[in-house]
Amino acid sequence: MIKVVAKFFPKEKKIDRVIELARELVEKTVLEEGCIKYEMYQDEKDPKVLLMLEEWESIEFLNSHMSSEHFTRIVPQLSAYMDKEPEISVCKKVL
Amino acid sequence: MIKVVAKFFPKEKKIDRVIELARELVEKTVLEEGCIKYEMYQDEKDPKVLLMLEEWESIEFLNSHMSSEHFTRIVPQLSAYMDKEPEISVCKKVL
Repeated sequence: MIKVVAKFFPKEKKIDRVIELARELVEKTVLEEGCIKYEMYQDEKDPKVLLMLEEWESIEFLNSHMSSEHFTRIVPQLSAYMDKEPEISVCKKVL
Repeated sequence: MIKVVAKFFPKEKKIDRVIELARELVEKTVLEEGCIKYEMYQDEKDPKVLLMLEEWESIEFLNSHMSSEHFTRIVPQLSAYMDKEPEISVCKKVL
């Protein structure tokens, strides 16, 4: 099992637009084979920090997700609304 | 339900020591009332990034955790092995 923690930093005035665009991404991604969880969160103290918390059955399903039609169409649109590059951790469990 | 994503940045030579110290913290925390999940992960590409992924039934249980004997004893020891301050997001689900 693979976990992904992706932190995004949208421009302040684009937070609502980013969440709106991400809605379709989430709705389509949770239907993908191998997707256990794909949820978006917002930092309560700093609303300019959005986090995608993902769980995949294997790295192959994650790779397949990243070449899906919805990912390759929506993610570039999201990128245009960001203040800086995302921080993405593909994680292994240690404890 | 409350999610917490805490990113830690241990000094390279202290990664193993940090994981060893965190083991007791995890073992004691999962026994706490209101703790749904408390797991430590490591970034596969950058092993100097450790992530604690937490789920709590409510903010009250999270606050109680942060004043527990094991938290107040172990966390200051962990801090001594860090390269920089942790990034901690208490999160609400938006999607």
